[in-house]
Amino acid sequence: MTDLLPGIQTGLDLVGVFFFAVSGCLLAARRRFDIVGSLLLGSLVGLGGGIVRDLILDRGIPNAFAQPVYMLPPILAAGLVYFHVVRVERHRRSLLAFDAAGLALFCVTGTLKALEAGMGPAPATLLGVTTAVGGGVLRDVVANEVPQLFNPRGVYAVPALLGAGATALLAQAGWLGIPSGAAVAVAVFALRMLSLRFGWRVPLAARLPRGGPSATGTRRR
Amino acid sequence: MTDLLPGIQTGLDLVGVFFFAVSGCLLAARRRFDIVGSLLLGSLVGLGGGIVRDLILDRGIPNAFAQPVYMLPPILAAGLVYFHVVRVERHRRSLLAFDAAGLALFCVTGTLKALEAGMGPAPATLLGVTTAVGGGVLRDVVANEVPQLFNPRGVYAVPALLGAGATALLAQAGWLGIPSGAAVAVAVFALRMLSLRFGWRVPLAARLPRGGPSATGTRRR
Amino acid sequence: MTDLLPGIQTGLDLVGVFFFAVSGCLLAARRRFDIVGSLLLGSLVGLGGGIVRDLILDRGIPNAFAQPVYMLPPILAAGLVYFHVVRVERHRRSLLAFDAAGLALFCVTGTLKALEAGMGPAPATLLGVTTAVGGGVLRDVVANEVPQLFNPRGVYAVPALLGAGATALLAQAGWLGIPSGAAVAVAVFALRMLSLRFGWRVPLAARLPRGGPSATGTRRR
Repeated sequence: MTDLLPGIQTGLDLVGVFFFAVSGCLLAARRRFDIVGSLLLGSLVGLGGGIVRDLILDRGIPNAFAQPVYMLPPILAAGLVYFHVVRVERHRRSLLAFDAAGLALFCVTGTLKALEAGMGPAPATLLGVTTAVGGGVLRDVVANEVPQLFNPRGVYAVPALLGAGATALLAQAGWLGIPSGAAVAVAVFALRMLSLRFGWRVPLAARLPRGGPSATGTRRR
Repeated sequence: MTDLLPGIQTGLDLVGVFFFAVSGCLLAARRRFDIVGSLLLGSLVGLGGGIVRDLILDRGIPNAFAQPVYMLPPILAAGLVYFHVVRVERHRRSLLAFDAAGLALFCVTGTLKALEAGMGPAPATLLGVTTAVGGGVLRDVVANEVPQLFNPRGVYAVPALLGAGATALLAQAGWLGIPSGAAVAVAVFALRMLSLRFGWRVPLAARLPRGGPSATGTRRR
Repeated sequence: MTDLLPGIQTGLDLVGVFFFAVSGCLLAARRRFDIVGSLLLGSLVGLGGGIVRDLILDRGIPNAFAQPVYMLPPILAAGLVYFHVVRVERHRRSLLAFDAAGLALFCVTGTLKALEAGMGPAPATLLGVTTAVGGGVLRDVVANEVPQLFNPRGVYAVPALLGAGATALLAQAGWLGIPSGAAVAVAVFALRMLSLRFGWRVPLAARLPRGGPSATGTRRR
């Protein structure tokens, strides 16, 4: 179905784990958690989406626990943030960029894993989106913030959905390879970053709220 | 064990998903999330309880991912809230009513699914309650609010527990059918709504708190 | 691999469930939830970590649902808190002590369960830590607080990690028995309590934050 070799696929998965883990460690730094909290939050963000995906696919012990190599990216991420290799001072922008990179890779690799487990294109797309947004939602929920996913400034789920759908269609057509998969990931990343840069929005949940729903209780980053 | 046909059972499950999804989309509207956030929050509330149930039953890929028809109720719910078919202006009362309807249906269908998977009456009752309250807890946690479940005004888990227990007992006695199942759901819904209307309460977690536990940090809707 | 008899192991597991459940019921009392909320929060804390562990091990229905005896510790905990047998007035200190006791037992029993399921020492250690910290994170997340795990005052994950690692090494060496397992649990409990008493800390997530990361939005207990 695809010519992405297993080794390359695991490699991409690990890179995605690393990007998400950095976003978790940056949030830990912003919230002044300690280094162990940073490692744990990084692990949760990096590995959470994939664990949820593997639980839903119901194929034995999730990769994150079966293969200890998955612990390396969070350890690396916590170290880079600790030594300020990733610039903590501009944490908000960095956090969003690393989060976008994780989102871009995971909507491709998550959809692929689901297809390989025998899911049809529509469920595989949904599971790909779940994998891609799951880690970030866990990060924000555990740190007691409203998930980035629900921040109406910028689009978040839309690029992930388009990327997962494109991956499923390309795989269906037999056209999914390293170049096409990379192109999808780059497009998802670009769409997310451009939406943040230019403040693209989709319509609100309720059309023309005539002063009705109060914004009380809303907290945004 | 039951004479609820599979088709009818799936139908009731989908109706329950729809009710819960509306409650999620109404919360999204109140918090001024966008339409995509509304769809995702609706999906999480509508499908979350059932996914947790299916993961615990450990019988392959959860229905919500295996059967794409489960995506329709959240899409419908997000559309109805967007076009104000469900009255968003009175969102709080609507939200609680739709939430109660989902609770009523899910404590019946969740218990049934657990019995069909071979669980005994006591574990099936517990899993039915978990299914019924799970989606709402996920909704409130992800939206960074204290779950409705813990709001001491009105009863929430008690009707779900009574409904799940009644379902298990009726099934055990061979009396569970469409009329009796519907009667249980209606009774759960009525009990929940009446408790909200008249402010019924159960005792607090600690008897006669003599000024001890401070209410600091408590946020209620 | 170990000479802890299954009955003793289940017994220790139930004691751990009880300790964590008390911490949940105490938090419910502090937040002025009602008695049903107390029972549910106690159940979530006590059983949540083990359910996550059993889902990840993918070995059928989690113990908490398969064996109704697991419901007894949360019921007992809710009763003891309701009748002030556990001193609710000094809830913060009590909560942290019961939480520490649960942490100490679960990092041993969780690691053991993972080893028995055939995991290697490194993944078993990780799953033991996940089991030990999982319930407490669920408690705090559901009650809309920043998890104790991320509170930089005192160490939390470090004793759990040391305890889980020691359990795995002892089992590997064939030295794990009731005395050695109990010694590990007591050491974990002591390390956690001493760290709270003397305010031991590990370094922050980012070295020497030169006024950069703002503490805005941080809430601590």
